Amino acid sequence: MKKILVNLGDRSYDVLIGKGIISRLPKLLKGIVGTPKVLLITSQSINRLYGKQIAKLLKGSRFEVTVCLLPEGETAKAERQLFRIYSTALKAGLDRFSGMVALGGGAVGDVAGFAASTYLRGVAFINIPTTLLAQVDSAIGGKTAINLKEAKNLVGTFYQPRLVLSDIDLITSLPKREYLSSIGEIIKYGVIASPSLFRYLENNASGLLKRKPAVLEKVIAESSLIKAKVVEMDERELTGFRAILNYGHTFGHAYEKVAGYGALRHGEAVAVGMCEAARLAEKKMLLKPLDRIRIENLVEKLQLPTTTGKRSLSPRLLREAMMKDKKKKGKEVRYILPIRIGKVIPVAIDPYSLF
Amino acid sequence: MKKILVNLGDRSYDVLIGKGIISRLPKLLKGIVGTPKVLLITSQSINRLYGKQIAKLLKGSRFEVTVCLLPEGETAKAERQLFRIYSTALKAGLDRFSGMVALGGGAVGDVAGFAASTYLRGVAFINIPTTLLAQVDSAIGGKTAINLKEAKNLVGTFYQPRLVLSDIDLITSLPKREYLSSIGEIIKYGVIASPSLFRYLENNASGLLKRKPAVLEKVIAESSLIKAKVVEMDERELTGFRAILNYGHTFGHAYEKVAGYGALRHGEAVAVGMCEAARLAEKKMLLKPLDRIRIENLVEKLQLPTTTGKRSLSPRLLREAMMKDKKKKGKEVRYILPIRIGKVIPVAIDPYSLF
Repeated sequence: MKKILVNLGDRSYDVLIGKGIISRLPKLLKGIVGTPKVLLITSQSINRLYGKQIAKLLKGSRFEVTVCLLPEGETAKAERQLFRIYSTALKAGLDRFSGMVALGGGAVGDVAGFAASTYLRGVAFINIPTTLLAQVDSAIGGKTAINLKEAKNLVGTFYQPRLVLSDIDLITSLPKREYLSSIGEIIKYGVIASPSLFRYLENNASGLLKRKPAVLEKVIAESSLIKAKVVEMDERELTGFRAILNYGHTFGHAYEKVAGYGALRHGEAVAVGMCEAARLAEKKMLLKPLDRIRIENLVEKLQLPTTTGKRSLSPRLLREAMMKDKKKKGKEVRYILPIRIGKVIPVAIDPYSLF
Repeated sequence: MKKILVNLGDRSYDVLIGKGIISRLPKLLKGIVGTPKVLLITSQSINRLYGKQIAKLLKGSRFEVTVCLLPEGETAKAERQLFRIYSTALKAGLDRFSGMVALGGGAVGDVAGFAASTYLRGVAFINIPTTLLAQVDSAIGGKTAINLKEAKNLVGTFYQPRLVLSDIDLITSLPKREYLSSIGEIIKYGVIASPSLFRYLENNASGLLKRKPAVLEKVIAESSLIKAKVVEMDERELTGFRAILNYGHTFGHAYEKVAGYGALRHGEAVAVGMCEAARLAEKKMLLKPLDRIRIENLVEKLQLPTTTGKRSLSPRLLREAMMKDKKKKGKEVRYILPIRIGKVIPVAIDPYSLF
């Protein structure tokens, strides 16, 4: 098992990564909450796979577990679901010293974290991410969110969990395409901050594709550490430092949106976005051709797309999508571009010059 | 004008108290927000009295003001209103560097503060309380809240405003009963923390009843200072220190609930509650009879009730209401009892022993 400390003063917490570590939950939880009442927030499918077993585990340690089931995917983040969590918590008698445990992917973690940050002005939040993407990204850093009809993630809080449990056993059942698309974010960490992680991925691509536990533990821990360090530097996205996490995402979000949500998975769109940002960096003489090639090769080796392929995405719609990007400043958009493996910088560019 | 600093590290802010200080808003706001877009959140009646004039003032300084009107009273804190604020902010184009300004009583401040703390994970919040009660109590300290169908204030955040403007001109139009009931909270500050404020109230009761600006500025500033000090000691209600603010409230909430909301105003119920707590403290030999008499006399002098009067409130219902109090620990309820003017202590008592 590996332990990463997210060091944020009185909001510090551990991220534990390992095989079968879910069994430690009851003991860890006892050190966090002050009442036996726990709300387990999960989805129908995850509940069937792991939720029931975890509830049993907790009940065996005298916790009183109430389960709140959310719909699958992004609909879990609707207003209605948030208020269902509040009502369920109230009915179950959760007080200020109780805990809410999220068990699921990014969407479940986002809405459960928001509920925990606002129920009785904040109760202990424990996150057990069940996707590789959530383990290396959204579970760490304290961003919570719900969706409005008008826009995704428009409402949320910065609220750090008290514990993140990344159990490798939970991600062995992920469908192949979902698993692969999460690897895009892991490559990202290598490019933005860690030449050694990048090299490790180049050398262990087949182990990662085969989901070897030792390789997974290593790359999840390295990714978590980088995410933790970035969050420590810029917890509330104020200094701009946290923006380096957007490498591949300004292009990626635009591809996702213009291709239609679902056509390209988030991680796939980010993979293409990282390659596109690398090609742009090379064109601007910021990145050596060899490094651009290493990025494209690693993306390909990990079975992710390096271009949008045969999809013909409208340049006008891509530009518009980028101009709406939250990170926009004036008429230019700030792209995060690599200058070598392990280092990125923000560059303001008018998207009209790109397409 | 008086200025009170609420000292909370990087969440510190000023509370400004004085006559006509609203005119300083545009200049102060420019030091806080990074965009000209401002959402002014208020109620229909307050908008008529002051909102339009404030919007004009801001527009005169090149702010782009969008007004979001909420219904009067507690209904402003309904889920539906919160989501109306989000939609209005989004439509108006508020971004992370914009500001939300609350103009109204406690309910408007509570929901506007909650919206500001969660819209785009937090935008600058400026509170302009228009009731005496909000000026001396809810506007300071960062508690925000909305109501669920099931219970009041069940959902909220701790989110400090960036500025509180307590303009005395705004409270001259308050209806007499509302004005008087707010004075209950001011007496409370004297009993819990300030013999000198208590003495000042004894000596200036008639000036306060006549709403003399000099007297108002003095008592609002003193009350704000005490509230600020309590909040600095226990920002998130974790150490228990903030509980001293509940003096008069455990009884008060029960009276309010059992008499039926509206029959007794909050401040009136708190006034009776403070007297009842003083009588209980005397019975327990914690408070000298003379101090109990001073408390009852001041409450009476300021035209507030010292008993529930001819109302016959069911002891069973009062007990039940107290047992449901959020501050309950086990079977006993923690009452805040005065031990002299200027000092209170928490005492755990079984409510079954009281009625």
